Amino acid sequence: MKIIIALGGNALQAEGKPATAEAQLEVIKNTVKKIIKIIKKGHQIILVHGNGPQVGRIIIQNEYSKNLTPAMPFDICGAMSQGSIGYHLQQALRYELLLNNMDIPVSTIVTQVVIDNNDVAFKNPTKPIGLFYSKEEADELVKNNNYTMKEDAGRGYRRVVPSPLPQKIVELKTIKTLFNDKQIVITTGGGGIPVIEKEDNLLEGVAAVIDKDFAAEKLAEDLDADMLIILTAVDNVSLNYKKENEKTLYNVSTEDLKKYVKENHFAEGSMLPKINAAIKFSESKIGRLTVITSLENASKIGEKNIGTTISS
Amino acid sequence: MKIIIALGGNALQAEGKPATAEAQLEVIKNTVKKIIKIIKKGHQIILVHGNGPQVGRIIIQNEYSKNLTPAMPFDICGAMSQGSIGYHLQQALRYELLLNNMDIPVSTIVTQVVIDNNDVAFKNPTKPIGLFYSKEEADELVKNNNYTMKEDAGRGYRRVVPSPLPQKIVELKTIKTLFNDKQIVITTGGGGIPVIEKEDNLLEGVAAVIDKDFAAEKLAEDLDADMLIILTAVDNVSLNYKKENEKTLYNVSTEDLKKYVKENHFAEGSMLPKINAAIKFSESKIGRLTVITSLENASKIGEKNIGTTISS
Repeated sequence: MKIIIALGGNALQAEGKPATAEAQLEVIKNTVKKIIKIIKKGHQIILVHGNGPQVGRIIIQNEYSKNLTPAMPFDICGAMSQGSIGYHLQQALRYELLLNNMDIPVSTIVTQVVIDNNDVAFKNPTKPIGLFYSKEEADELVKNNNYTMKEDAGRGYRRVVPSPLPQKIVELKTIKTLFNDKQIVITTGGGGIPVIEKEDNLLEGVAAVIDKDFAAEKLAEDLDADMLIILTAVDNVSLNYKKENEKTLYNVSTEDLKKYVKENHFAEGSMLPKINAAIKFSESKIGRLTVITSLENASKIGEKNIGTTISS
Repeated sequence: MKIIIALGGNALQAEGKPATAEAQLEVIKNTVKKIIKIIKKGHQIILVHGNGPQVGRIIIQNEYSKNLTPAMPFDICGAMSQGSIGYHLQQALRYELLLNNMDIPVSTIVTQVVIDNNDVAFKNPTKPIGLFYSKEEADELVKNNNYTMKEDAGRGYRRVVPSPLPQKIVELKTIKTLFNDKQIVITTGGGGIPVIEKEDNLLEGVAAVIDKDFAAEKLAEDLDADMLIILTAVDNVSLNYKKENEKTLYNVSTEDLKKYVKENHFAEGSMLPKINAAIKFSESKIGRLTVITSLENASKIGEKNIGTTISS
């Protein structure tokens, strides 16, 4: 099968531990040990990864050092995080592949994703990024940099950026060429570097965060994948999550899922985007499946009662 | 022709200007306008770029912010610079290609390059990176981080890292696949992310700077390229550079060049590595040519008295 795997934050760094390079590489090595089991079954995979905490730290470094060297804007910080996370993933994957006598080339493609400048997300930026500022500093940033600043749970003011939908993966032809050659590609990291398309096909980076599950879904459709796997912190999707009457979902139709969405079973900015990406992919063509589960379950996907499988 | 182009620092940012994202993108757009003329002649190209000032700034940001968030080591900073510089180059190239009705896919491959842990360069680290420190701070860094620190022209102490030779381009198969498909690839940025190969093919990032001209030469050999173009700040290689008896070289044999090297005509860390890369490539197979010239001359390569052409 052709499988697109979306890796969540917990697959890339240890929660609550200092985000040193060593600690992150350790987590990534462990993640790859799980992923390799999918490859060993003969499946062809593409990895899409998140970058929230990583790009957050790059932005903090940029803002904090801005009197020493100019701070880079959001799109460039995103490109940097694709480079560094991709590097660790491709290094760890290559090692595990060779250890398993699979000489499959692995690479990271720096990937831009076109968004619509008129996306409704621009009217209500929701993703907080970078340092915390005082009210006065925040007002200056609004005035001078045209930032949207929001008060963040009593901790100060932070910049917020919109989270628009992915419209087009710019480097798709390259990804296709490598995927058709049965290579493993790490791409669309952090949902892709967000760009808008201007006159004469001119692309221009913007400050926005594309949800990596939606980006993975788009890629899965574009590559005619058979399965989209969304790896996250839980084994299954649940109704009434963390309540007394919590109900674990194993096999669910997109029709039922849409009903559950309306009943507000899924948290915004957390499970909801995964659910919406799953519905979109599983309904895009007959036979396409989405599985939402934990990294720990990754190697057992396809077995009975493993993860939540969404079909149309 | 199959051409590998090595872009020097002046192709990526304006000297003496603040290194803002806008200023760098402007320079890169201008660089790409020159490169596109080579592509329009029907040649197939791969771009290798330097990253000295860019990775230097990333390292400074990391060191300066280390009490806020852990500083990333040298290899990761290099991966970041490949992401950010590659992003700008591929964005600018795509625009110029489409403007010229050439629908050629462009992408950046995050690229590791294996070096030899026993390379003589490790005995004498020469490349200064990062912030300036006092004698006391420098002594601490030597003790705690095992850094090599050197006094830098009265401005304080800086870390120095070795500059070993490239032994193997890890992502070569991927680059080959794309090049064979006539796509444009940006790769081996900053000479590649330096890694050593340990037991079981395990790669491990190290603090080192691989000369990007040597890396481009290695890639040119590996891809069986016809020409290696090294773009730099001068139109031609000269003997007795900047002296009264300066002599411009147009066509020169590797045999003569080797003689000139022995006569100390070329500055270490500047023209000498380019000359040595040129000799190596032009002697690697009959018919292979190296051209050293300025970005301004790039589109006129092949015309009479343009650049210095090195043949065996």
